[in-house]
Amino acid sequence: MYSGRLGELLEARKLDIGDFVRIKFKGAEKSGIIMPKDQFSRPEVLYIKLANGYNIGILADEIKGIEKCSETDSGPQIRPRKISFDKTKPKISAVITGGTIASKVDYRTGGVTGLSKSGEILENIPELSDIVNMECISPFTKMSEDLGHEDWIEIAKAVAKQLNNGDRGVIVTHGTDFLHYTSAALSFMLRNLTKPVALVGSQRSSDRGSSDAGMNLICAAHIATGDIAEVGVCMHGSTNDDFCFFSRGTKVRKMHTSRRDAFRPINELPLAKVWTDGKIEKINPVQKKRSDGDVELDIAFEPKVAILKAYPDADPDVIDYYIGKGYRGFVIETAGLGHVPTFAKKSWIETIRKHTKDGIPFIGTAQTIYGRIDPSVYTNLRMLYHDAGAICSSDMLTETAYVKLGWVLGHTEDIEEVRKMMLTNIAGEITQRTLPETYLY
Amino acid sequence: MYSGRLGELLEARKLDIGDFVRIKFKGAEKSGIIMPKDQFSRPEVLYIKLANGYNIGILADEIKGIEKCSETDSGPQIRPRKISFDKTKPKISAVITGGTIASKVDYRTGGVTGLSKSGEILENIPELSDIVNMECISPFTKMSEDLGHEDWIEIAKAVAKQLNNGDRGVIVTHGTDFLHYTSAALSFMLRNLTKPVALVGSQRSSDRGSSDAGMNLICAAHIATGDIAEVGVCMHGSTNDDFCFFSRGTKVRKMHTSRRDAFRPINELPLAKVWTDGKIEKINPVQKKRSDGDVELDIAFEPKVAILKAYPDADPDVIDYYIGKGYRGFVIETAGLGHVPTFAKKSWIETIRKHTKDGIPFIGTAQTIYGRIDPSVYTNLRMLYHDAGAICSSDMLTETAYVKLGWVLGHTEDIEEVRKMMLTNIAGEITQRTLPETYLY
Repeated sequence: MYSGRLGELLEARKLDIGDFVRIKFKGAEKSGIIMPKDQFSRPEVLYIKLANGYNIGILADEIKGIEKCSETDSGPQIRPRKISFDKTKPKISAVITGGTIASKVDYRTGGVTGLSKSGEILENIPELSDIVNMECISPFTKMSEDLGHEDWIEIAKAVAKQLNNGDRGVIVTHGTDFLHYTSAALSFMLRNLTKPVALVGSQRSSDRGSSDAGMNLICAAHIATGDIAEVGVCMHGSTNDDFCFFSRGTKVRKMHTSRRDAFRPINELPLAKVWTDGKIEKINPVQKKRSDGDVELDIAFEPKVAILKAYPDADPDVIDYYIGKGYRGFVIETAGLGHVPTFAKKSWIETIRKHTKDGIPFIGTAQTIYGRIDPSVYTNLRMLYHDAGAICSSDMLTETAYVKLGWVLGHTEDIEEVRKMMLTNIAGEITQRTLPETYLY
Repeated sequence: MYSGRLGELLEARKLDIGDFVRIKFKGAEKSGIIMPKDQFSRPEVLYIKLANGYNIGILADEIKGIEKCSETDSGPQIRPRKISFDKTKPKISAVITGGTIASKVDYRTGGVTGLSKSGEILENIPELSDIVNMECISPFTKMSEDLGHEDWIEIAKAVAKQLNNGDRGVIVTHGTDFLHYTSAALSFMLRNLTKPVALVGSQRSSDRGSSDAGMNLICAAHIATGDIAEVGVCMHGSTNDDFCFFSRGTKVRKMHTSRRDAFRPINELPLAKVWTDGKIEKINPVQKKRSDGDVELDIAFEPKVAILKAYPDADPDVIDYYIGKGYRGFVIETAGLGHVPTFAKKSWIETIRKHTKDGIPFIGTAQTIYGRIDPSVYTNLRMLYHDAGAICSSDMLTETAYVKLGWVLGHTEDIEEVRKMMLTNIAGEITQRTLPETYLY
């Protein structure tokens, strides 16, 4: 409960947690629900859940006025609808792993809670049942920033099981922050993929007026029943609710903290544009088509891999620290065409050479995000990639190189074999030729 | 000299280092100069310097034919022109620090060498002398990936000296890889800036046919004599040689490994578009105008700052390692709206809380590049930024936050003062309102 000045203010106006209020502060006026405090709240701040689902904190000193208002002013009403299953529609599965898309706002308390019942996602978005007969399974429920390789393996197992049980395709619902790491992991762990796997998230929880969850899920259902046999991410392609992009799981990246069209393909075109009416326009000609055969699960993984960044004054000694902790490989976000500090006060080259000789792989990726590492333009690039033995990622994303290196090291400890596998395009992660229009797409 | 199969091949055809040759290999045909081998060359590879200035390595096994050809087939001829200085034109300075823009290709040896004489840059781009009377000074010559804070201080001193000696403006020529770190550093180190400082690089050295050096320098000269009193980066705005962007030094980032239009403003519009004829179109209304007064040099800097990245399975123990090495602050590239692994196997929150209590600042920046950290949407964000005491970068770039934190720690050790300064917009690094069209600009 609120205490001090805020406590007095609320008591004087007979206001309590969960009340809908209109509040004036610093020239602004908002309406929303008074949220409970928790151990992390600051004493002088009043927390309000707005109708769009976001929380704001208002300093007691800045409050000019606060009054109860009617519930209908303040937020959408949630009226769950019951869905009847229709066995004549294609059968797909939704592997629900948590994140904003699998959450709903409790407008009484302001908290965000998970959709625990598997059918609940269908109740929120009843249009799904017009397209598919969707089975919901949930191996766990976590926000994506808390996921790691063990979770990727769980998801891969669940997806493979559903696909090999005869599903047309699978949707994976997931938090957005680390979504592209999981999409890369599934791309490598699901070998001989013959059906679509569409990862989908949302930037606003599915019961909010402005949510992208519904459209993303409906488009993902069309992808899951379609004929692109790839792991990909299906999210808004623009800020309008007009279409989604389905982008390859190894080439996609979250490029914005909050926009609904945050997920963009890097160095290649999206696989397809998808509309809610089921129209699918293939954009990237390089894609696998639906075929027959069981997916093979290949989940061997070595998690002792670290991502390092080359930046001014960065000290390569941290590599020795990681080696001491048993790390087996590194991805270095390099500068420009693949540079690390070379003739700087602390050169990275000798440290890398020393450990490469001991069989530790170092993969150079592009800090610029877009473009391709080129190991031969400059002398110091040849020192790093030809002489010291670092491995060139070509145009692979840092995130993808990180996941791939862990997966490769799960299969071999031989550095020459690692080099060969890293340089081989296994799951669409290396694009042979970059179209100019893919820059900042 | 080449040995083995390659040695025999060249000897049989009476070919030597520096010869212009036409070479057929794997279905392709190229002409260029045979480069000398060095300690980093592989034995079975022939290195050829192409007319566009790039090197290629061709495996001996892949060579189908090789023959001497005429020099004029193979590359531009360099004919230095002499420039006479014209004291009636505005006086600016070029602080030459190295990088591709201050290099020329030696078409005999294939090597890239620095332009050692200060006038040489003018000889390569004689149009500059139609615009300005340019003094060239060079505190050092390094590739940008080898630069650190001590170099930033040297550059800041050189720029301040020239500006306070009466120059209209200053150009800094620089390698492109870490150019945006230097532009951020100068933005903080040059206080009370009343004149333009234009950083400029090139993706191809200035004597190559496809070089961007000439246009970038000419546009930078127009900026240096113009009325935008900001530190900014002046580089190609498109892949055509049509205009340059001048983008704020704290908001600009190299977004592509090799394209000439690699430098883009992040979360705001470029300050201006610039054409070689001197036309300057201001795009971003938030900018400082030329005025009077000396620039103040403020170079206090604490280099013991590290950039960390939050990624799946990332171990926060590395923070303890850095603390043990005497590090005084951290920038964390966080996921989404500002997340670190929180309820993961290894939570980052407790480690951050522990060191924050000891006065160590942690700045959360956006791994997505675009967008803004928001410390209050989710419970775990409130845990990190409100309770554990991490500092929110708002929409500051990771690179800028890194430079700024070193600069702030050079001025104060008090964490509350650090917090205040990091949250204050000092050199345009925090944008109050983001225009939608700045995404992937």
